[in-house]
Amino acid sequence: MASSVSPLAPAAFPDMPPIDGVRIATAAAGIRYPGRTDVLLALFDPGTAVAGVFTRSKCPSAAVDWCRDRIKRGAAGALVVNSGNANAFTGKSGRAATKLTAELGAKAAGCRLDEVFLASTGVIGEPLDASKFATVMDRLAATATSGGWHDAARAIMTTDTFPKGAAAMVRLGTSAVTICGIAKGAGMIAPDMGTMLSFVFTDAPIAPALLRSLLAEGVADTFNAVTIDGDTSTSDTLLAFATGTAAKRGVARIARASDPRLPAFRKGFVAVLANLAEQVARDGEGARKLVEILVEGAKSKQSARRIALSIANSPLVKTAIAGEDANWGRVVMAVGKAGEPADRDRLSIWFNGIRVAHKGARDPGYDEAAVSAAMKKPEITLKVGLGLGKGRDRVLTCDLTKEYVAINGDYRS
Amino acid sequence: MASSVSPLAPAAFPDMPPIDGVRIATAAAGIRYPGRTDVLLALFDPGTAVAGVFTRSKCPSAAVDWCRDRIKRGAAGALVVNSGNANAFTGKSGRAATKLTAELGAKAAGCRLDEVFLASTGVIGEPLDASKFATVMDRLAATATSGGWHDAARAIMTTDTFPKGAAAMVRLGTSAVTICGIAKGAGMIAPDMGTMLSFVFTDAPIAPALLRSLLAEGVADTFNAVTIDGDTSTSDTLLAFATGTAAKRGVARIARASDPRLPAFRKGFVAVLANLAEQVARDGEGARKLVEILVEGAKSKQSARRIALSIANSPLVKTAIAGEDANWGRVVMAVGKAGEPADRDRLSIWFNGIRVAHKGARDPGYDEAAVSAAMKKPEITLKVGLGLGKGRDRVLTCDLTKEYVAINGDYRS
Repeated sequence: MASSVSPLAPAAFPDMPPIDGVRIATAAAGIRYPGRTDVLLALFDPGTAVAGVFTRSKCPSAAVDWCRDRIKRGAAGALVVNSGNANAFTGKSGRAATKLTAELGAKAAGCRLDEVFLASTGVIGEPLDASKFATVMDRLAATATSGGWHDAARAIMTTDTFPKGAAAMVRLGTSAVTICGIAKGAGMIAPDMGTMLSFVFTDAPIAPALLRSLLAEGVADTFNAVTIDGDTSTSDTLLAFATGTAAKRGVARIARASDPRLPAFRKGFVAVLANLAEQVARDGEGARKLVEILVEGAKSKQSARRIALSIANSPLVKTAIAGEDANWGRVVMAVGKAGEPADRDRLSIWFNGIRVAHKGARDPGYDEAAVSAAMKKPEITLKVGLGLGKGRDRVLTCDLTKEYVAINGDYRS
Repeated sequence: MASSVSPLAPAAFPDMPPIDGVRIATAAAGIRYPGRTDVLLALFDPGTAVAGVFTRSKCPSAAVDWCRDRIKRGAAGALVVNSGNANAFTGKSGRAATKLTAELGAKAAGCRLDEVFLASTGVIGEPLDASKFATVMDRLAATATSGGWHDAARAIMTTDTFPKGAAAMVRLGTSAVTICGIAKGAGMIAPDMGTMLSFVFTDAPIAPALLRSLLAEGVADTFNAVTIDGDTSTSDTLLAFATGTAAKRGVARIARASDPRLPAFRKGFVAVLANLAEQVARDGEGARKLVEILVEGAKSKQSARRIALSIANSPLVKTAIAGEDANWGRVVMAVGKAGEPADRDRLSIWFNGIRVAHKGARDPGYDEAAVSAAMKKPEITLKVGLGLGKGRDRVLTCDLTKEYVAINGDYRS
């Protein structure tokens, strides 16, 4: 298990204001480790809209199945999240566990069963004993209060080395709304499998359909543009809840895509997603470098994304960055294997602003000392210019260190 | 650089008979390191047929471009291979270097320029000084003799920890033909990039078109079914040369796909490719386990291949195997992310013959002690049953150890 906080962690957990209409409580239910906070309950005021995006894995967890079947109604009363057990690959018992958990959540919230949303993270293949939630649910419901984001972010951690939160205030006309989000990162401890979970909350009065499209649009360049090791989880879940309580303060409902206030809200919403996604990359297992991959001059944005992911998931590129080596030969390799249009003889590559390769060969002005100094920084921007078109994209990742192998392979030795 | 021989290496280099019509010599031309054998010259008798398959990288090396432009003629007079420099991403100077090398080779062999085939492996992006070949070419041509496979296999090594060779004798009617092959594996030393190179030789009198189809067919389930780290090289090259000299011993020419002797020849030919490909997996950087991934019950062979590659390239599966952990939760993850048809509730998983998961949940008879013992073996077979159809496939890989990260990331520290 990771013992120290990632050197790439933010200096402090951010100040996050409470959101009217959201009450939160956490507890230790002994899901996997005794005495460790492992359950998060969020209760929502009536009228709360919800939207969600989930893993594309063909083998999703039982909680993902549960949410996917209910997300289209767009109404939320409660959210129950546990760490310590992913309730994935658990067959019928997994489905029974989601039902029992949701029943407990519905009773606590006084809402319909299909207004309860669930997420689980932790070991795969172990039955989840949902009766453990029964022992804590009444107290959770009784003690739930506004705020408490730091505790909430802590409760969903597995091998994360720091809790992840982000907030934004957005002025809508004469009033303002708040957006708060928490996330957990891609961490694994044997025989556990971490999963990416994120929950975003706002008091903005926004129609479920609009929330849905904001989320689908916002996730593409934030969470879906982060990769630690290319291993997609069975449980990835991002849920957005909008209580609408800002309406009480005079914020008119946002019901149409043409609403002139929507761009400002979108900007704040996406900023929170982007901030959380970057924190996930900063807490990649064993990470010592935050790596931003920029691809420009591709045939299309989609093509740029595929090339950026090919670079970001290349073990050879990631180990080179861990070794503080501007090994652009490996970048060429990763561009070449992506299967997307690329012309070797137009390719240029930069590390932290220093051009190391130009038009298919080493840059004539290559300065080893300057490049070496640039590679020592904790944040590396690797830019590739393809020189073919106007497609560009950006992906965040981290380096591949011996600590990654130790975290994921050492537990049996 | 890897200092000790892989624990997965064969006990000894195989006995490999000479092939009539092929003469070989090696030399130290000082391409990168002084005093290290780094050039291989093979000279072929007139009438030698050649076929080749090359990297699918969009950024191929200059040598790959050279060969691809000339392979369709199907006639070979010489092969020149160097280690120490990949002549990749070298622009115009790289093209000039291939031309000069081929001119030297054509002069040495007394053949046409477009009957000379080239391969280079080593650092990317450094200009290759082909004039160094001039200093050794005459002596190479003068000393080239039949046999010498061990020296040839050594001359093309980079971070390989052992030379790789394989041979087969195939009876064709009343006489026999010989097939000999050498290969180099996937090894990298900073700032070098290893590449997969393999050369197969036979005295069988076989038409170029048939050799071509045998090669294309044979590579699919051998070299193309091996992955060390999912990083496709710029320089992967597999060339097959058939001198046809067995005709002098009465072996009639194989000119038609319906020739009744072809299945026997194919079997021997593919066995040599499979043997070499397995040796490449056994010499993966930092490898301590040879891992065979079997996928059964898929919708198609292609679907089974994609799922097998998703498992074989998963850093989480590979580190788990390094940790001797039968972590089938990570296998489920890798099946799920492959994007191919899969039904969680029909999935079964075996490690070295022990079923650990069945129909979407942990196997009821799961025995931790038995599984732990099985995982300690140096060779691991990981079988996945999808229960959907009749598609099956097999991929070879190795585990992911701290040594892999050290080999590819430590050189700057």
